Amino acid sequence: MTNAPPGAFTLRATSGTARRGTLELAHGTVETPAFMPVGTAATVKGLTPRDLREIGVNIILANTYHLWLRPGRDTIVAAGGLHRFMGWDRPILTDSGGFQVFSLESRRDIDEDGVTFRSHIDGSSHRFTPENVVAFQEDLGVDIAMMLDECIKLPATSEAVAASVARTSAWARRAASAWRHGATALFGIMQGGVDERARAKSAADLVALDLPGYAIGGLSVGETRDEMVRLARFSAALLPTDKPRYLMGVGTVRDVIAAVDCGIDMFDCVYPTRSGRHGRAMTRSGDLNLRNAAFTRDFGPIDEDCRCEVCALFSRAYISHLFRANELLGMRLLSYHNIFILDALMADARRAIEADAWAAFRDRIGAV
Amino acid sequence: MTNAPPGAFTLRATSGTARRGTLELAHGTVETPAFMPVGTAATVKGLTPRDLREIGVNIILANTYHLWLRPGRDTIVAAGGLHRFMGWDRPILTDSGGFQVFSLESRRDIDEDGVTFRSHIDGSSHRFTPENVVAFQEDLGVDIAMMLDECIKLPATSEAVAASVARTSAWARRAASAWRHGATALFGIMQGGVDERARAKSAADLVALDLPGYAIGGLSVGETRDEMVRLARFSAALLPTDKPRYLMGVGTVRDVIAAVDCGIDMFDCVYPTRSGRHGRAMTRSGDLNLRNAAFTRDFGPIDEDCRCEVCALFSRAYISHLFRANELLGMRLLSYHNIFILDALMADARRAIEADAWAAFRDRIGAV
Repeated sequence: MTNAPPGAFTLRATSGTARRGTLELAHGTVETPAFMPVGTAATVKGLTPRDLREIGVNIILANTYHLWLRPGRDTIVAAGGLHRFMGWDRPILTDSGGFQVFSLESRRDIDEDGVTFRSHIDGSSHRFTPENVVAFQEDLGVDIAMMLDECIKLPATSEAVAASVARTSAWARRAASAWRHGATALFGIMQGGVDERARAKSAADLVALDLPGYAIGGLSVGETRDEMVRLARFSAALLPTDKPRYLMGVGTVRDVIAAVDCGIDMFDCVYPTRSGRHGRAMTRSGDLNLRNAAFTRDFGPIDEDCRCEVCALFSRAYISHLFRANELLGMRLLSYHNIFILDALMADARRAIEADAWAAFRDRIGAV
Repeated sequence: MTNAPPGAFTLRATSGTARRGTLELAHGTVETPAFMPVGTAATVKGLTPRDLREIGVNIILANTYHLWLRPGRDTIVAAGGLHRFMGWDRPILTDSGGFQVFSLESRRDIDEDGVTFRSHIDGSSHRFTPENVVAFQEDLGVDIAMMLDECIKLPATSEAVAASVARTSAWARRAASAWRHGATALFGIMQGGVDERARAKSAADLVALDLPGYAIGGLSVGETRDEMVRLARFSAALLPTDKPRYLMGVGTVRDVIAAVDCGIDMFDCVYPTRSGRHGRAMTRSGDLNLRNAAFTRDFGPIDEDCRCEVCALFSRAYISHLFRANELLGMRLLSYHNIFILDALMADARRAIEADAWAAFRDRIGAV
């Protein structure tokens, strides 16, 4: 740790548009580009903090919406903060819950001041405002808090997109005013759908607030992959070079490589753990569905080139058996392996950028 | 490893009727009394071989019935045996599948030669004989194979009990003849319900075969706990002192202590993992249901005296949260903790017997 303020970002190298940086946070340093495994409810599903440390993970994501409802602020504060509660001592970023609340559709009611919604667990009523969402995350003691944004579904009319940008910008100003400037860094979230003018307006409004970092939100929500990549590239270029850029909801091998190529520094996605729980094993050359009969007598590892503990000890046939027998261990092993694959991919990407060899690395993966 | 034949047992110490021994097997030495976690389908549910090694587990149990049906003999043999298939290099005992097949009731048809049954998975027809069940387990390369027995439900008439003993003895003679006397040791299984004369007859028939070890079967199947303890004590006394004694299906703190007090050396039970998956945390002074509201703000460990990794890092409140949120990690953590509790209890029991202080230890646990 240095004496830099939490959220201080140093751009160490570039190769083409790909960036290699260091992000200093209250609970440690994150080397970027970095993939952040998702621990929605204060647990990366099926894995322990020790597993994540062994994989090499330096930052995880949790979710304001879920933690607000269960176990709630008071329990986590009484536990000594989210890190203590879940036994993880490295950085945590919490999403704002905006995406989750807006996904509730019929069960939420938005107004200028905030959004009222009913819990998916017990139907109880709750209210998010730009201010209380920042305060909640600060009370949890996380390293990076995300502002409350309005994330609309695509396709949407340009009027709806412009309105969501205007509201998100207004909320960003309120979030920035409420932010305590303490150990928790605050990131803004750009909206604007697939409309370049709306993206530019959103970026300009957020950058004017001089926040520690900026996320690109509102993608991977219904647009095509080509649109996603085009908008991610366009959006990244609107952001200052000296601040970290976070593309929300991206986590396949192809998409992460494409995002790094767009100049993005951070990503998160449930894909590695969710697909792992369903029997899908990630590799750099594509996913394997280990439930397929083809794997029942395949005694090789998931991936010959993978250096994870799962590939060292277990065969495709064994993991296939675990899924056929509905055994818990299968979900655990593939969640571990899939996160390892993305973490190792990012480590190699960082080395490639440092060596100014990004384009060759990207093309070898063949993903953009 | 010494040059003793697989299954060689040395009685190291006694304290009252409790026994402290060493069992030498093809994949290592087991210090007894020992609790064997259950890995029915070639996995101790939710845990890796590394977890089990870290806990200190030296022998696990798997099940012939389940492995016969899925993934089947040929897959496991092609993998290089059950140890290689599941990544576990310490001893494995496989149950014979007798208990599971007889539990199928309407889906099995028993005759003098064996039992024909339909798979609970796909309805396909299969047949177990005393010979093919031993051969299957030897083909898998396990350390201890169990003979096929006829396990009847209690209460039962004395005629039914006598018939099951007669059939079990006949099958034991056939199993002993079929046994290759290789790396896999063969254990007999005593039957006889709660009928002392039937137990004595079953024991005499099995002991005449001079097998490497003897199990006490047919208990924990409908009788009261008092009957179970009485019959376990009576049955153990019928067995030779120089062979290991295995009480099948016992695995609560109280029952394991009672069984050691009866002169039993080995136990297995799904209780620690099954109860763990349902939110029950074991301690020496009783179980805690971590789903109870009382634990949602309890930031202490499951058990102040437990030295396991779960108790070192996580609170009752956090694990309670995991169960409320239906998170996989809760099942994993309690399975780990519960096996640790029984494994540490057996380590302490071994020390107490060595010090000829068993009665004081037993009474401190307060379990018999």
